[in-house]
Amino acid sequence: MSAVNVSIVGGTGNIGKSIVNALLSSENQDFRITALVRPQSIEKPEVVDIRSRGIRTTALDLGGSEHDLVKALEDTHVLIVCLPPRHTSQEIKLIDAASKAGVKRFVPSAWAVTAPPNDLMKRDWKEAVYAHMKKVRLPYTIIDTGVWHEVVIPRVPSGKLDHAALMGRTFLVGQGETPCATTAIQDIGRFVASIIVDPRTLNRYVFAYGEHVTQNQYIALAREITGEAVPYIPVSQEKVVSVAHQPETADFQVWQKVIVQYLYNNWVKGDSETSYAKYLGYLDAHDLYPEFKVKPLSESMREAFSGGEDFAAQVGDDSFWVGLEKLLLEEEDR
Amino acid sequence: MSAVNVSIVGGTGNIGKSIVNALLSSENQDFRITALVRPQSIEKPEVVDIRSRGIRTTALDLGGSEHDLVKALEDTHVLIVCLPPRHTSQEIKLIDAASKAGVKRFVPSAWAVTAPPNDLMKRDWKEAVYAHMKKVRLPYTIIDTGVWHEVVIPRVPSGKLDHAALMGRTFLVGQGETPCATTAIQDIGRFVASIIVDPRTLNRYVFAYGEHVTQNQYIALAREITGEAVPYIPVSQEKVVSVAHQPETADFQVWQKVIVQYLYNNWVKGDSETSYAKYLGYLDAHDLYPEFKVKPLSESMREAFSGGEDFAAQVGDDSFWVGLEKLLLEEEDR
Repeated sequence: MSAVNVSIVGGTGNIGKSIVNALLSSENQDFRITALVRPQSIEKPEVVDIRSRGIRTTALDLGGSEHDLVKALEDTHVLIVCLPPRHTSQEIKLIDAASKAGVKRFVPSAWAVTAPPNDLMKRDWKEAVYAHMKKVRLPYTIIDTGVWHEVVIPRVPSGKLDHAALMGRTFLVGQGETPCATTAIQDIGRFVASIIVDPRTLNRYVFAYGEHVTQNQYIALAREITGEAVPYIPVSQEKVVSVAHQPETADFQVWQKVIVQYLYNNWVKGDSETSYAKYLGYLDAHDLYPEFKVKPLSESMREAFSGGEDFAAQVGDDSFWVGLEKLLLEEEDR
Repeated sequence: MSAVNVSIVGGTGNIGKSIVNALLSSENQDFRITALVRPQSIEKPEVVDIRSRGIRTTALDLGGSEHDLVKALEDTHVLIVCLPPRHTSQEIKLIDAASKAGVKRFVPSAWAVTAPPNDLMKRDWKEAVYAHMKKVRLPYTIIDTGVWHEVVIPRVPSGKLDHAALMGRTFLVGQGETPCATTAIQDIGRFVASIIVDPRTLNRYVFAYGEHVTQNQYIALAREITGEAVPYIPVSQEKVVSVAHQPETADFQVWQKVIVQYLYNNWVKGDSETSYAKYLGYLDAHDLYPEFKVKPLSESMREAFSGGEDFAAQVGDDSFWVGLEKLLLEEEDR
C-alpha cells in the first residue's frame, strides 16, 4: 500500500501526541507525517522530540499568507487539526488553503462530546468551521470522542488521582445514572489511524469512544481502586439546567459556564452517548471496527493511582472550582 | 399494513396539495390524513375541498397553547410541515408539541435546493428549526427537492408560459452550463408517500428531485416546445457573486437578494446537484427508489404551453424584476 501523507496541526498537544504515536506505530499503513508548527515553536523541546522520531516538522504561521499555507499543504493527503477552541478563523484559513492544495481529507478540530448543533459549550465555533468546510466542498471526516478518561477520574483525599483529574470537584448530577461515552486519549490516535484511510468514513461524522459510564459507576470504580472515599457534591438536574443558561458575569466566567454546560450535556441530557450520536448522523467506530480493543476506564484509573504520568490534567486554579461549587449549591432566588 | 396517521400543516399550499394528492392515491399504504388549519381558514374553499375528499381538517392556532398543539398531534405518526419561510418560531413550537405527543417522524419545511448550512438564501431560518429538532431528539426526515419546474420554465414573447413561470426574467448566468436539480411539484408528494414510511430515511436527509438541467438546456427546450425565441439576460458569474453579497437597501430588498442568492447557489456554485447533496449527507431518492418514474421538465413545459393550469406561478410585480435587472446589469463602480 502506498504511503499516506498526513499533516497535523497541533501535533504536540494531548490529542496530537496520541495521533502521532498511533500513526508511527501503525502496522497496516505507512504514514508519512508532517507536523505544521508555529515558527516560534520550531525549536521547542516537544517539537525537537517529534522531529527526532522521524516526523518532518514545518514552520508555518497560520495567520500568514494563503500562498504559504497552500504550499505547505501541497502533498498532503490528510490534514488533521488539533487546535484548542477559539481558533475558528485560523481553521477557516486552513480550510481554504487545503481546498486549493487539493487535500483529500480534512479532519477538523472536533475531539469532543456529541451534542446538538449551535446549542451550548461554544459548539457554534465548531459549527462555523464545519459550515465553511462544507461551503468549499472540502472532503472531510469529523471525529468526536466523548470525554477523556481524565474527566471521569475523580479526585480522592490522598491526592493520588489529582495528576489525572481534569475536574477539580466531582459534581454528582441528579441520580448519577446517565451514561456518557468516555475514551482514553491513547485510543483516540489508534482510532484515527483506521478512520482516516477508511473510505466508509469520508464525508461522515464518526463517534470514536471507549465505553459508556455513569457517574455512579466511575465513583464506585474509584472507590474500589483507591480504597478511599470519593468526595462528591450532589447537585440537582434542575440546578444544572438553570446555571447552564445563566448569563456570564464577573463571578461566572465563560469557561465556568462551559463546564456547567458540559454537566448539562453529558449528565442531564445524556447527549454524549452512542444512540444519540447515531440519531445525529454519526457512524459508531465500534460498528466500523468490531475487533478494536479499547482501553477501559478501570485500566486508566489503576495506572493513575499507581503514579502513571501519561495523563492530560490541568485541574487549574482552585478558585475556579470554588466559584462553581458556590453557584451550583446556591439556593434558588425565590 | 396498518394505517399511517399523517398530519400536515400547510396542506392547501403547492407542496401540501401535492402531498395530500399523493397520499390519497397511494396504492402501497393506507394513510389517514389530518390537515391542521388555522381557525380562520377552516371554512375557506380550499379547506372545504380537501375535507370533501375524506381528509380530516382540524382547526389549530399554531400560536396557541402547547396543550392544544400536543392534543392535536396525539395520534399522529408522521407530521409534515409545508410552511412558507419566516415561520421559524411556529415550527419550533410544533417540534416541542410533536415531541411531547410522541410523533414518530417529523418532516420539517425544507422542500428546496441543497445548500451549505447557514450560508445564504435565509438558510439560517431552517437551520434554527433543524437544530431545535435535534436538540429535543425528535425523529425526523428532511426532504429537499431542487427547484420546481416553474423556476426553469422561462417566459416567452407570446406570454403562453407566463402562468407557469416563477421567474419574471431569465438571467442566464455565465456560460449557462451548470446543472441544477429540478422537480415537478406533483412528484414531490409521490416521493413523500414513499419516503415517510421508509425506515432507511429515518433521521436522514433525502434529496428527492426529478432531473438535472442546465440553463442552456431549459432555454433550448422552451425554444423547441414553443417555437418562439426565449429572451434572456446574460449576467456574469462574478456579477451574481458580488450582488448576492451586497447589503440590502431600499432598492435591493430581502426577497430580491434571496433570488440573486438562488442564482448564485444554483447556477454559479452548482450546489443544488446530487453529488454535492451526497457530500452534505443526503440520500438520493433515485438510489432509494430506482423504479420511480419522474415527470420530465419537457412534459411540464408542454402542458404549460398548451394551457395546462396545474402550476404554481406567482411571477409577481414587474418592478421587482426591473429592479433586479438593473442591479445585475449595472457596471461595477470602478
